[in-house]
Parts: sequence; structure tokens; C-alpha cells
Amino acid sequence: MDKAVVVRLSGEIGVKGTPVRLRYERLVARYSARLLRREGFSNFKIDHRFGRIYVYAEDVNGVCKALSKLFGIHSLSPAVRVGASIDEIVSAGVEVAKKRLRDGVAFAVRCRRVGQHPFTSSDIAKALGSAILQELGDRGIRVNLDEPDVVVGVEVRDEDAFIYTETVEGVGGLPPNVQGRVVCLVSGGIDSPVACWLAMRRGCTAQPIHLDAQPYTSPQAVEKALDALRVLRKNTFSVSKKAVVVPYGEVLSEVVDKCPQNMVCVVCKRMMLRIAEAIALREGAWAVVTGDILGEQASQTLQNLFAIDSAATKLPVLRPLIGFDKSEVEELARKIGTYEVSAREEPPCRAAPKRPRTKASPEEALEAEKDLDVEGLVREAVEQATCVSLD
Amino acid sequence: MDKAVVVRLSGEIGVKGTPVRLRYERLVARYSARLLRREGFSNFKIDHRFGRIYVYAEDVNGVCKALSKLFGIHSLSPAVRVGASIDEIVSAGVEVAKKRLRDGVAFAVRCRRVGQHPFTSSDIAKALGSAILQELGDRGIRVNLDEPDVVVGVEVRDEDAFIYTETVEGVGGLPPNVQGRVVCLVSGGIDSPVACWLAMRRGCTAQPIHLDAQPYTSPQAVEKALDALRVLRKNTFSVSKKAVVVPYGEVLSEVVDKCPQNMVCVVCKRMMLRIAEAIALREGAWAVVTGDILGEQASQTLQNLFAIDSAATKLPVLRPLIGFDKSEVEELARKIGTYEVSAREEPPCRAAPKRPRTKASPEEALEAEKDLDVEGLVREAVEQATCVSLD
Repeated sequence: MDKAVVVRLSGEIGVKGTPVRLRYERLVARYSARLLRREGFSNFKIDHRFGRIYVYAEDVNGVCKALSKLFGIHSLSPAVRVGASIDEIVSAGVEVAKKRLRDGVAFAVRCRRVGQHPFTSSDIAKALGSAILQELGDRGIRVNLDEPDVVVGVEVRDEDAFIYTETVEGVGGLPPNVQGRVVCLVSGGIDSPVACWLAMRRGCTAQPIHLDAQPYTSPQAVEKALDALRVLRKNTFSVSKKAVVVPYGEVLSEVVDKCPQNMVCVVCKRMMLRIAEAIALREGAWAVVTGDILGEQASQTLQNLFAIDSAATKLPVLRPLIGFDKSEVEELARKIGTYEVSAREEPPCRAAPKRPRTKASPEEALEAEKDLDVEGLVREAVEQATCVSLD
Repeated sequence: MDKAVVVRLSGEIGVKGTPVRLRYERLVARYSARLLRREGFSNFKIDHRFGRIYVYAEDVNGVCKALSKLFGIHSLSPAVRVGASIDEIVSAGVEVAKKRLRDGVAFAVRCRRVGQHPFTSSDIAKALGSAILQELGDRGIRVNLDEPDVVVGVEVRDEDAFIYTETVEGVGGLPPNVQGRVVCLVSGGIDSPVACWLAMRRGCTAQPIHLDAQPYTSPQAVEKALDALRVLRKNTFSVSKKAVVVPYGEVLSEVVDKCPQNMVCVVCKRMMLRIAEAIALREGAWAVVTGDILGEQASQTLQNLFAIDSAATKLPVLRPLIGFDKSEVEELARKIGTYEVSAREEPPCRAAPKRPRTKASPEEALEAEKDLDVEGLVREAVEQATCVSLD
């Protein structure tokens, strides 16, 4: 009776055509091994079979916890592995039940079977169910097929059988790095690292950019952005080694000096998008990802978005949080581990006007920019960008 | 002792500046009344106070259920209302506890207080907690302040006190229709109605468009799209009375005839975006909303998105589902009530090639379109668009 983890892949991987499906499954298997090694596991074996990955290791709960953050995995169950015979399954299943079923609970056995066997799934369910009842019936344990407190799962796969009672949720998504590069604008706030994570979960490789607006913002803003990115890099395989940090203070200073005060935020966001787009094109990225939430801040109204978006026309701007509620973003930030860093205190941007325009138009934005050397400022900012290690 | 519902507004409404906050709260109060009337409630009273809405009605559970789908509401509690004195609160609180606390449970009293009172929140919590213990202690009921099974909530607001034990989650978001118009591309599939709902939850007013690709698609596709929109219109105040239905079969026929086979999906999506953008500009909308999920289908790769997005440059394209997993979209579709309609069977699009290009570029797309009269096709499609009632 070995210990094992049953790894179920994202449902979306299962519906791809066979060649893509196999490639994606193999990728998840390979990244699983890399992740486990990185987390300090040494004695483990990865066993990829079509539609499933099994991991053999001693610390099955530790493996589940580690892999539950890997993109491409739907769920995981710490399990025991025995040979695929009714006798072995029943005897191991009763042992599992003895440990896992508390007095008085209602249970059900659910069996799933792939391969050629002299028994059916329902044979297994019946045999194991009766054996558990017989052994543990005096502890008030009973069967309830419709609403069990605990499910004893049996997965028979060719010559092996896996028995488990627990299922840990994974983060889902597509395997890491199957989509291509995107540039992610990441600030010191809560939203943008979450947007970056969502894009990565859909297979994107993230090249993060931080626009450092000192002296309008504080050194904390840069540190928070980089720390959040370090969390993301540690927990995924999808963040570039280095973040691009762009000195943005002079650009913002020009904006503050030369644009109408109430248009500062809109023009600032337009400049940011332009710089991000220029870097994205230089880096061979396919899109710019931002943390915009519709209507969350005065500068994020639908109309301002229109005015801001019109400044970047060469690449798609992806806004994974556009339809989120702030509370949902915070919840996700907690789950992915960036909340603690991003929620650290930071003084507000000193360039933000008290009454920002909430209904700007593209024409109004162009008019507000008429004294700015837009191209020159973008070019200079991009030239002065530096790389900062995230390791 | 009256019946009442405590309505808590979305957290985001509470952090807006006072004028916007008041406007948003009043909007939620007004839409609450409209929704209740629409759902057949007649004897109710809406009581808006800064930061809260109280609804007085007989069927408090029905009111909670109805309002739980209104945008702008974080959560709701069916409650009883008494005067704001310790005696009244204790006596009513004990009655509530008698009905709601099952034998043996651990409870805690939590009190929140706004206004001038001769007692503190903690006075109330102590007085009601002891009274409940004294009355119900023989039923094995006990206090657990850290991990209670049931919380007895007391909300004291000026001259009133509200007592409750249950909290129903709302859908959150901003009040209906505070952002402006967007055009939503809605198909017969599961994703696009969910994307439309997410945009509406952030305050957008949706003008739905359906592109009817018959004979490449079936009459069911049109019916499914319209039925899903009817569900959305019934459950929100944010869907236009009429959907714009665009005859798209001839456009697609041109695409199939004149473009390389493997580019049909990319060019088709470019044409759809162009038509949606043209209608959006005509309708005074600020953005086009689509149900794209990154990497879900062959035509939704990051690179294809780049090639598709480049066809529409006049308005932002919002893709609320871009970072979702398919399973999350399905779960949300179930919650908002569109799943059942969208999951009905429908033959696949007959124009889709077996091996669609997954890595198109904007230049390749332009080349593929060289024999198409793009402008003429868009103009004609827009001219032939008809309106279909969603009531």
C-alpha cells in the first residue's frame, strides 16, 4: 500500500483535441516535477497517464498543497495505491475508512474505472461499501448515497487502484506559458498583481512593468510592486526573471505642468499605456494587461476608459478584472498571496487632483495633451527603463 | 416587533465621496422598490438611511431572495425590528434565539450601533448573551465568541434595533445603469451572456447585439441568445428593451468564399467586431463587450486576439471573462440563470474549418481579407439590422 496523489487536470485541457491535450498534460506533469523540486521534495515520482497525473511520494498532503497552486490542475486527492483487485481494494479501503470516518457519519463509495478488469465500478462500490459497514457499523457509521458526509473515492486505472476521501481544489487554468508573452502593468496596489496572475493562469507569460512615479509617489510603491511580483514569481513559473522599472516621475511632472488639472489622471493613464505598449512591442509581447476595474476609481469610468484606451491602438489591452467587484479582487489577492504585500500602507499619489474629470472624451484628452511632447516623453521613458531582478 | 430586511450596500459604494455615495445609495433604494413591485410584492416600505437600506415587509425571506440579485447590494438579513432600548432588544433577541438556535449550538451576539444611545454595543451583547444563556442554557446552548455556529446580530440604528441570525449574499457591484451604455455581443453560447451580466454589474447599460449567421448556424442559436437575454432582462434593470439582430449569413458566406479556409474564424471575428463597433457608435455606446476567454477555443489564442482586436480601433473592447476558467463561467451562468438556456443543444457553426489558424497576425488577417469588401459588408449588415423585443 503506497502513498499517492491523484492529480485531476483542468476540465478545459480534457476537451482539447488529442495532440494539444497530450502536450498540455505533459507540460503540467513536467511543471509538477519542477515545482515539487523547487519546494524541497526529493523522493517523488510523477506518473502521467492520459487524463491523469499520479504523484508517488511520502508527504502526500504536502504534495497536494504545493501542486494546488500550479496552473492547469483542477483538484488533487491524497490517496493510497494498491493493486487493481477487489480483495486489495476492499482491504485497503477498509483501512482508509477506519482512519477517516468519524463515528456516526454517513458515507458513500464512488468508483471510477479505466482499463480492462474482471469487475465493474459498481462491483467495487458494493463490495467496499458492505465491508466498511460490516467493520465499522458498530460505530454508528451508515451509508447515504445521495447526501454522504464523506465520499470514499476509488479510482481504478489499469493495474492500479487509488483510494481517497479528501479532495483539495487546484487553481485551474491552462498549463503555464502556453499562450505567449504579455506585458503586465503592475503598481503598488492590490489589483494589478491579481490581474497579472489571472492572465498567467490562462497561459500567458508575464513581463512585468512598473512605472515609478517618484516623487509623486513614494519609494514604498516601487517596493510593494516588486515584492508582489516576487510572490507571483515564487508561486508560478510564468513571471519573467526581471521586472522593467520605468522612471516615470518626469513624465508625470510634465503632465502636471502642462495639462488641465482635472485631466491629469486620464492623461497619466494614457501615457502609461503608451509606454507599456512601446515596451511590449520591443519585448515581442502580444498584449498589455492592466488591473482596471470598471468604475472603481474616478479615472476608471466607462467614458474615461474610452478616452484612455484610444491612446494605445497597436496592441490589445486586456483587463481581467474589468467585471470584478473590489471585494472579489481582495479575496483573490489573499488566495494568491499578494494581499499582504499590496495592502501595506503607501501615501497616495500627489499628482492626483481633488476633482478628476470622470467623463473625458478622446478629443478632450488630445486637447489636454496639446502642449506635451508625447512621443518624446514615451521614447525617453522607454530608453531610461531599467531591469530589476525578481529573484 | 415588526419584520424587516437589513440591506447592506456593496463595499465600493461606501468608499465613494459623500455626494456620489448618497446618489448610489438612493439609486439602490429606488431600484429595490421597483424590483419588489415587479416581483409582486405590494405591502412593503423602503427606509433608506446613510449606509443602509431597511425594507419593512411581511415576507422577509422572499424580499431577501428577490433583492439578492439586485446590483449594488452586498448582503441581506431577514430581521425583526424593535425599539432601541436594552429591554426591548433583550426580550426580542431571546424570542429570535428560541426559534433559531438549535439544541447544543454555540452562539455569539454581535452588536453594531449608529446614533446616540444610553448604552454601548458591548452592553447589548452582554445583556442579550446572558439572557439567551439563562433562557436556553438547559438546551445545551453555549457561548463561543471566536467560532460560533450561529451569530445573533443586533444592529441599533437611532431609534430602531434590528435583530437577525441569517445573512444572504447579494451579487454586489455598482448600482444599475450608473456607467453608461455598452454594446454586448451575445451568441447562443454560455459565455457571452455571463460577460454581459458582469459588465452590467459594474454599472453598464447593455445594448445586446446578436449576429445571426444562418445558414451556417441554426435558428436555435438566435433563439438561445434571445432567451438568455430575456433571462438577463427579467433579472436586472440594465438590458435594453430590444436586442439588435444582425443578418450575418451573407457576410460569413463572403468570408468563407474569399478567405483562406484556416483564416475563416479570425476574419469572422474581425467582421463581428467591426459590425459591433459600427452599431455601438450609432447607439452612443462607449465600448463593445465580448465573452472571449483567453485560450478557450482555437480562435481565442493570445496571438489571434491581437489579430482580431486590430480590426476594431475606435472603441475599447471589454472582455470580462478573459481571465476566467470555463468552469467558473459555467458556475456563474448557473447563478445568474442563463445556463439552462445557453446549454441547450445547438449544431456547431458549419463555417468553422477543421484546423483553424491559431497564430494569425494582423498583417496576415489583412492579407486574408484582400478580396473582401470589408466596408461594404459592414455597412450593409448594419443597415439590415432589426430590433427584436426582449419582453
